[in-house]
Amino acid sequence: MGYLENINNPSDLKKLNNEQLDVLAKEIRERIIDTVSENGGHLASNLGVVELTLALHRVFDLPSDSIIFDVGHQCYTHKLLTGRQNIFPTLRKQNGMSGFTNRFESKYDAFGAGHSGTSISAALGIACANKLKGNNAYSIAVVGDGSFTNGMIYEALNNCSGDTPNLIVVLNDNEMSISKNVGAMSSYLSSFSNSKAYINFKNKTYAFCLKTKSFGTVILGVGRFIKNVVKKLLMNKNYFECLGLKYYGPIDGHDEELLELVLEQAKKRKRPCVVHVVTKKGKGYKFAEERADIFHSVGQFDKNSGETSPAKYDYSAAFGDCLTEIADKDNRVVAITAAMGNGTGLTRFEEKHSERFFDVGIAEEHALTFAAGLAAMGKKAVFAVYSSFLQRCYDQIIHDVAIQKLPVVLAIDRAGLVSGDGMTHQGIYDSSFLMGIPNFEVYAPENYAELKETLKKAVDSDKPCAVRYPKGCETLYDSCFENQDDYCVADLVNGEKNVVIITYGKVTYNVYEAAKKLSDSCNVRIIKLKKIKPIPYECIYDLCSAYENIFVIEEGIRSGGVGENIASYFNKYKKEVFVHAINAEESFSGNADELYDYFGFTAEKISKMISEKIK
Amino acid sequence: MGYLENINNPSDLKKLNNEQLDVLAKEIRERIIDTVSENGGHLASNLGVVELTLALHRVFDLPSDSIIFDVGHQCYTHKLLTGRQNIFPTLRKQNGMSGFTNRFESKYDAFGAGHSGTSISAALGIACANKLKGNNAYSIAVVGDGSFTNGMIYEALNNCSGDTPNLIVVLNDNEMSISKNVGAMSSYLSSFSNSKAYINFKNKTYAFCLKTKSFGTVILGVGRFIKNVVKKLLMNKNYFECLGLKYYGPIDGHDEELLELVLEQAKKRKRPCVVHVVTKKGKGYKFAEERADIFHSVGQFDKNSGETSPAKYDYSAAFGDCLTEIADKDNRVVAITAAMGNGTGLTRFEEKHSERFFDVGIAEEHALTFAAGLAAMGKKAVFAVYSSFLQRCYDQIIHDVAIQKLPVVLAIDRAGLVSGDGMTHQGIYDSSFLMGIPNFEVYAPENYAELKETLKKAVDSDKPCAVRYPKGCETLYDSCFENQDDYCVADLVNGEKNVVIITYGKVTYNVYEAAKKLSDSCNVRIIKLKKIKPIPYECIYDLCSAYENIFVIEEGIRSGGVGENIASYFNKYKKEVFVHAINAEESFSGNADELYDYFGFTAEKISKMISEKIK
Repeated sequence: MGYLENINNPSDLKKLNNEQLDVLAKEIRERIIDTVSENGGHLASNLGVVELTLALHRVFDLPSDSIIFDVGHQCYTHKLLTGRQNIFPTLRKQNGMSGFTNRFESKYDAFGAGHSGTSISAALGIACANKLKGNNAYSIAVVGDGSFTNGMIYEALNNCSGDTPNLIVVLNDNEMSISKNVGAMSSYLSSFSNSKAYINFKNKTYAFCLKTKSFGTVILGVGRFIKNVVKKLLMNKNYFECLGLKYYGPIDGHDEELLELVLEQAKKRKRPCVVHVVTKKGKGYKFAEERADIFHSVGQFDKNSGETSPAKYDYSAAFGDCLTEIADKDNRVVAITAAMGNGTGLTRFEEKHSERFFDVGIAEEHALTFAAGLAAMGKKAVFAVYSSFLQRCYDQIIHDVAIQKLPVVLAIDRAGLVSGDGMTHQGIYDSSFLMGIPNFEVYAPENYAELKETLKKAVDSDKPCAVRYPKGCETLYDSCFENQDDYCVADLVNGEKNVVIITYGKVTYNVYEAAKKLSDSCNVRIIKLKKIKPIPYECIYDLCSAYENIFVIEEGIRSGGVGENIASYFNKYKKEVFVHAINAEESFSGNADELYDYFGFTAEKISKMISEKIK
Repeated sequence: MGYLENINNPSDLKKLNNEQLDVLAKEIRERIIDTVSENGGHLASNLGVVELTLALHRVFDLPSDSIIFDVGHQCYTHKLLTGRQNIFPTLRKQNGMSGFTNRFESKYDAFGAGHSGTSISAALGIACANKLKGNNAYSIAVVGDGSFTNGMIYEALNNCSGDTPNLIVVLNDNEMSISKNVGAMSSYLSSFSNSKAYINFKNKTYAFCLKTKSFGTVILGVGRFIKNVVKKLLMNKNYFECLGLKYYGPIDGHDEELLELVLEQAKKRKRPCVVHVVTKKGKGYKFAEERADIFHSVGQFDKNSGETSPAKYDYSAAFGDCLTEIADKDNRVVAITAAMGNGTGLTRFEEKHSERFFDVGIAEEHALTFAAGLAAMGKKAVFAVYSSFLQRCYDQIIHDVAIQKLPVVLAIDRAGLVSGDGMTHQGIYDSSFLMGIPNFEVYAPENYAELKETLKKAVDSDKPCAVRYPKGCETLYDSCFENQDDYCVADLVNGEKNVVIITYGKVTYNVYEAAKKLSDSCNVRIIKLKKIKPIPYECIYDLCSAYENIFVIEEGIRSGGVGENIASYFNKYKKEVFVHAINAEESFSGNADELYDYFGFTAEKISKMISEKIK
């Protein structure tokens, strides 16, 4: 029988002794591996923080104290310890447990996350609120070293010093973001945490000093003396101390007892401090330790063999191949990623054109302005980025690219609905916000061939361009689309009533299937836009003018989207346009099919919706 | 006779000797003071960098080398030295010289700016492009210490280390952003640059070492020895060195000769380095030295007396007063600013409720997530920010506020067209992008009374809210508006044709004036929205349904704006709606009247436009 099943909330944890905690840690790892091997999820990062999470929950008292997990890639142990064992099997399922922290899921989740770098800002806000309320609760941000490439972390650290009490930043240093970490900060952290000998020696001395304190002032004095000598010998005033923060570390992040001792020290300090913890990504599961990048975020896998399903050739891979080919012939082309070289399919580009490949860290804002700088010197800078993370650059798109008319190319991956990760990862805003930004051209290919065609156009253009494409693989199907430069038209003619459907991107396949059903009784025209900005309004209007029933099906938010732009334009012809787009007011999650069903984008729901509306 | 008039481009500068440069510096300051006293502009920051700019232009060769000025608050000397003396009197005028760097204005402006923190990213992009092209040109970012509170600077610094050659970051340390600087970094820089004795001693030794080098290896050896001893004695491994950057400084930023020596050293180094220069804001003009915050950005003033026109009671002041009053009665209210406490009218709030006032530095992203953290603990966090800088937080608005349904209040100052500062400072995007963000409510008061009313509603709401208001003062006028909760209606009845105009915010006055003209021959109904999200569509439709001619006049971009939302909604009733909004594809600038004229928002142009369109 195990300990985990008896942990109903963190206070149960405090009754266990060190041996029992060791067993518990093992049980937690097994539970995480079991569930993630079934449901997919963030594995390596979660396995790395089991002892750290145990120590945090034993030293602090949630929910009066608050722990904020940066990005939320490491909150599974936290969830298992805070009354969510029963819903753990629903991890990442529709209406199931979120893979990230979520304020609506538990009072133990002080703040939600999904994007990098927000934790210290939120923790500082919570700490200041606690201070104003006159309570002594602690606010703890747990941040991976990968997030330390993100500017928000620095903005928040810069703001921490002074008298903000009871704020503790735990730097979880596993030397990775999702891929191998980049940048000066990473080298710097390695320089004083990477030497095993140093960590062990130091930690033991440190632990000794901490423990001896309870033996009284004489011993304490000796302990302090040793500690100071050790400190003087081994540590200069470091980066964090330059910023006015008390620094503890580096600590072995898998030594639960030591972690508790240090966290207790930090707790007593009553001023902002950084606890630097060194952990191993994938700890305790050898396949994940060996291939931490593959097991960072993983689909179903065989837990005994560690075999993951082979990567499918998807839009990301197709993009990477297209860009590499273009770069083979055009030496102006450079590729930029914000710590997502693998995720955005740029591995081959990096291998072949390493000098033209730039991984700038989790730093989307810098990435885009850096791209603008390259473009200002005649380079064809292509920034490959997930749609939801592109949101970070909204100002840079306007200020550094659009206003300056610099021909940067945004390669927007994960555009549209995104399975698995919930609200924070949806690529449903980019069409709308790009429609409003001056001087931009935006392409929305439906398959790899169109991706190739439009990416080439974007690279060759002298204007700022974006090419947006979904997560997953293309769907190839027989169609009667007639291809034009910026759009395609298909006519399925078989009835009396006239319906035209305007759409773009991945959902086109479902629209086409819906149209086939509808064409039993209707003449259906489908206009598939390959270029969504600028929209060739007059052209599109001509194609619609003879039709009674005009629909736009858009896998993006309604306000400011393609549909609303068209409806507003057609308004002058007093032509009614029915726009079916995404309303994201309420929380949602699920796999690709579930999300399509939820938002009415399956072929069935599209045809039903249209049947009900046509006259 | 002077030297300045003979400087046609930077190469002319290289012919002058030290004495002549001193005179030139004086002439430049006079020219800047003369022009800014007439046209307004950034004074204190520009007076602080005269010697630095001279030294940069003498050591480097523009335009093959590139200088990127962060924010562009300090580029006037640069402009005077690069062939723009003739257009200098048109500073900030319509179609005149921009107050910021501008790629379209001169080949010497390598990159445009107006928002903080972008310079190192752009400079690094330019440096990488130079490297790929195999040329040895230098890329120099000139950054104020105020911008060092911004996260992009760190993202870029983190990305600089390694082998990016020929990149030089000049940290212009004047201990100010616009107001007094905040944060740990500022304290840190002060700690080693603030001691006069240290600067002088160190600089003299440094200069000696540098100069002696030309006397041969023996002396060079001695020089190096002294330099190293001095370095060991005075400098620990500092913050920048932790990030792998070579550090020079702190240097007296008004000693032109010394600056040249150090920049020559940095140039020879061929790896990224930071040159830390200490300057005095307002240098050489005693009124600006004494009141650097007032003279940072200033309107017309008397150059002999230093008298500036007294500050008008404007929307910012009214906002500050309203919020202070609300906070007097509600201790949950906290105010947050990103280094714009004065600009956003929060001075009184800070005085009265200092413990509830947070200046987080030029760090808009952190500011918003920090506000979200406060809101998560039940505080009423009001983030006061200029509309154009709010663009920096687009992702945080979605990820940290909207999705988490946290009742943060955005107090959006400078919403709509903004005089003087050109493209980068226009508040024309916020209505559009906020319309698309779930769970937000957005108010757009037209006068101080409505500001008070809507701000109170926003603070009392349990939803995320925004209140947007323009730069400048309210216009009070007689009207027959009937006040409803979220909108007002005025009927000017005197003719046959029926016109309804929907509008909001500052432009309403001009709409009203236009309506008065039109009402000679038409029945004109004006619907002024006080709340633009959610729009009470059915209500508005009922008010319009009897009208033939429906217009929306919107001081914001068209795509995704209020007008397009209404047009799209009315589409289902086959009601034509003509939307007159902003198209920002081409460059524009000017004062408030000129901008209104350019975009067709004067009463004359509105009435003419409507007259031409009505049936």
